[in-house]
Amino acid sequence: MKKIINEPSNFVRESIQGLVVSHPDIYSFAEDNENVITRATKASNKVGIVTGGGSGHLPVFTGYIGEGMLDACAIGSVFASPSVNQIASAIRNGDNGNGVLCIMGNYGGDVMNFEMACEIVAEEGIKTKKLIIADDIASASYEDRLKRRGIAGMIYIFKIAGSLAESGKSIDEVFDLTSLANENIRTLGVALSPCILPEAGKPTFEITEDEIEIGMGIHGEPGIKREKLRKADPLVDDLCVRLLKDIKLQPEEKVSIMINSLGSTPLEELYIISKRVNENLSKLKIKIIKSHVGRYATSMEMAGMSITILKLTEDLEKNLLSNSKCPFWTN
Amino acid sequence: MKKIINEPSNFVRESIQGLVVSHPDIYSFAEDNENVITRATKASNKVGIVTGGGSGHLPVFTGYIGEGMLDACAIGSVFASPSVNQIASAIRNGDNGNGVLCIMGNYGGDVMNFEMACEIVAEEGIKTKKLIIADDIASASYEDRLKRRGIAGMIYIFKIAGSLAESGKSIDEVFDLTSLANENIRTLGVALSPCILPEAGKPTFEITEDEIEIGMGIHGEPGIKREKLRKADPLVDDLCVRLLKDIKLQPEEKVSIMINSLGSTPLEELYIISKRVNENLSKLKIKIIKSHVGRYATSMEMAGMSITILKLTEDLEKNLLSNSKCPFWTN
Repeated sequence: MKKIINEPSNFVRESIQGLVVSHPDIYSFAEDNENVITRATKASNKVGIVTGGGSGHLPVFTGYIGEGMLDACAIGSVFASPSVNQIASAIRNGDNGNGVLCIMGNYGGDVMNFEMACEIVAEEGIKTKKLIIADDIASASYEDRLKRRGIAGMIYIFKIAGSLAESGKSIDEVFDLTSLANENIRTLGVALSPCILPEAGKPTFEITEDEIEIGMGIHGEPGIKREKLRKADPLVDDLCVRLLKDIKLQPEEKVSIMINSLGSTPLEELYIISKRVNENLSKLKIKIIKSHVGRYATSMEMAGMSITILKLTEDLEKNLLSNSKCPFWTN
Repeated sequence: MKKIINEPSNFVRESIQGLVVSHPDIYSFAEDNENVITRATKASNKVGIVTGGGSGHLPVFTGYIGEGMLDACAIGSVFASPSVNQIASAIRNGDNGNGVLCIMGNYGGDVMNFEMACEIVAEEGIKTKKLIIADDIASASYEDRLKRRGIAGMIYIFKIAGSLAESGKSIDEVFDLTSLANENIRTLGVALSPCILPEAGKPTFEITEDEIEIGMGIHGEPGIKREKLRKADPLVDDLCVRLLKDIKLQPEEKVSIMINSLGSTPLEELYIISKRVNENLSKLKIKIIKSHVGRYATSMEMAGMSITILKLTEDLEKNLLSNSKCPFWTN
C-alpha cells in the first residue's frame, strides 16, 4: 500500500482536518460533532441543504459545502455511512429555520440512517425532506430506476439544490425542482483498477491488466460486464448508447455533461472521452450547454471514469450555471 | 498500459481537441497553427501572456488560458518542447499590440525554442520579454537557483502575470512583479510511482513498492535521494525543513501554499499533507493566506505530490487573489 498517510485509523480525521484548515473561509467543524462539517459562515433565511456519506470519495461529499451549494455534511468512515447521530447533527447545523433538504446516495446504510435522523430532528421541530440520488444506470433497470445507486450525478444535484435554496425558494420548491433534476440524470462508468482501503491495506477488488468492468460501482460493486480493454472511442460509444437509450433525449434538447475521473485516470484521457461524447451527442443534434471534466466523485486512487448526462430545462440550466463559492466547482 | 485512449500517436491531439470542445467559451485553436491554443475571445489593449511546453501535464500548460490568466499556449508532444514555429505562432496570437511576456519552465528545449521564436517575432515588430520559471529546489543548489527546473510553482506565476496584464500594467511592470514572484517561490516534491508514456508504452522510471524519491522531476528526472516510504508527517516535515531553509521566511510573513498531486495521489492524502504543512508553518508564526490543494501540474497518472510556498508581498497577494476565469482555477 503506497500512500502518503499516517496511521490508517486516522486517515479520515486527518484528511478532513486538512480540508478545513486549508479552506477556513469555506468549511468549519460543527461545534457539537467532530464528524460534521458546516459552512464557515452559516447561511440565514434559506432552506438548508444537507448530505452525508462515506469517506474516500473527495471532493464528495463534504467538499461541496459552500455558498450556493451545501450547508452541512455528516462524514462516515471510508466507504461507510455516517451514524444517525452524526446525520442528525448535520441536519441541525444545516437548518436555518426554513427546513432542510437531505440529499443522499442510494446506499442502504445512508438511506436508513438519514430516515432515522429525520425522525429525531422532526421531534425537535425541524422539517425535512429526503431526496435519494439514483443516477447509475448500471445498478438497476429502467423500470427499477428508483433503486439505482447514486454516483457522480450527485454533484449536479448538490449544485441545483444549493442554487435553488440560495435564491430563496421554499423547501417544497427546492425539493420539486431538484427531484426533476434527479429524474433527468443518467451516469455510467467503467473501472480499470481498484483502490486500496487504508485500514484494510488491500485492493477492493481484483482485475487483470487487460480487463475493464463496465458499470462497476464506486465501492467496487459488481457492474454490467467485464471485458477486454478497448480503445476509447468504441468504449465511449458503447456507454453513450446505453445512456441515451435510458435518458431518451430528443434532437435540440439541451444537456450538461460530466466526465468524471474515479481517481487516477488523468485529464488527458478524460478529454479524449469528452471529445467522443461530444461527437456522439452532436450527431443526434443534442446541445451540450456545459461540460464538467475532472475529478468530481472519486474512490481515492481507483482508475476509471464515468459519463453523466443531465437533461436541462430552463430552470435547471439557470440553477446549474448560477454563482457559487466552493473550491471544487468553477462557475 | 491501461489507459482509455485511441491510437497513442493521437493522444495529444485528441486530448487538446477535447479540451477545446468541452470549454468553447474559454479555449480556441489558433487559426494558423493546430498546436497553438488561444483564448476563445481575444483580449485587447493588454500585455499578452504566453507559455508553451510538453504535453502530459494537464492542466499545465494550456489549461491555464483564460481571462486573468494566459492568452496563448504552444503545445508540444508528451514531455517534449513545442517547436520554434509553434511558439512563434503562440506569441503572435497572444499579442495585442502591447508586447508579450513569454513564460516557460527551465527546460533546455523550451528555453532554446522560446529564444529563437522571440527573435523571429522581434523582426515582425512584436516586443517580448522572457521569464524562466525555476522553483524546484531539488534541481540545483541555492547558489545556482536560476538553473532550477520549473514545476508546480509555475501556476502561481501564470496567475500573477495574468492578473497584472489584465489590470493594464506595461510589459516592464508585468515582468518585474512576476520576476519577484518567481524569486519568492519554492517547490519540492516526492514521487511514488511512474507514469506511462502513451507512445512508449512503458514506465518512465522504476521504483520498488516500498520506495519513494524526494525531488524527482515531473519527467522522472533524478531527485535528491531515494528512501523507504515513511509516514506522511515525518516526510512532510523533511520537505518543509528543506523548503524553509531555502526560502528564508520570517515570522509574521504571509505565504500561499500549493499542495499538488502529480496525478493519482488523491485529495485525501493531499489534505493530510496540507494539514502538516500548516502545522509546520504555524509553529514559525508564518501566515498562510491561501491554500491550493489539488491537481495543478501533473505527469498523467504518476503518484506523488509537491509542496509549493509563495512568499507574498501586498502586490503579489492582490494579484494572486484577483478574479479570473479558467476551469482549473477557483478564485
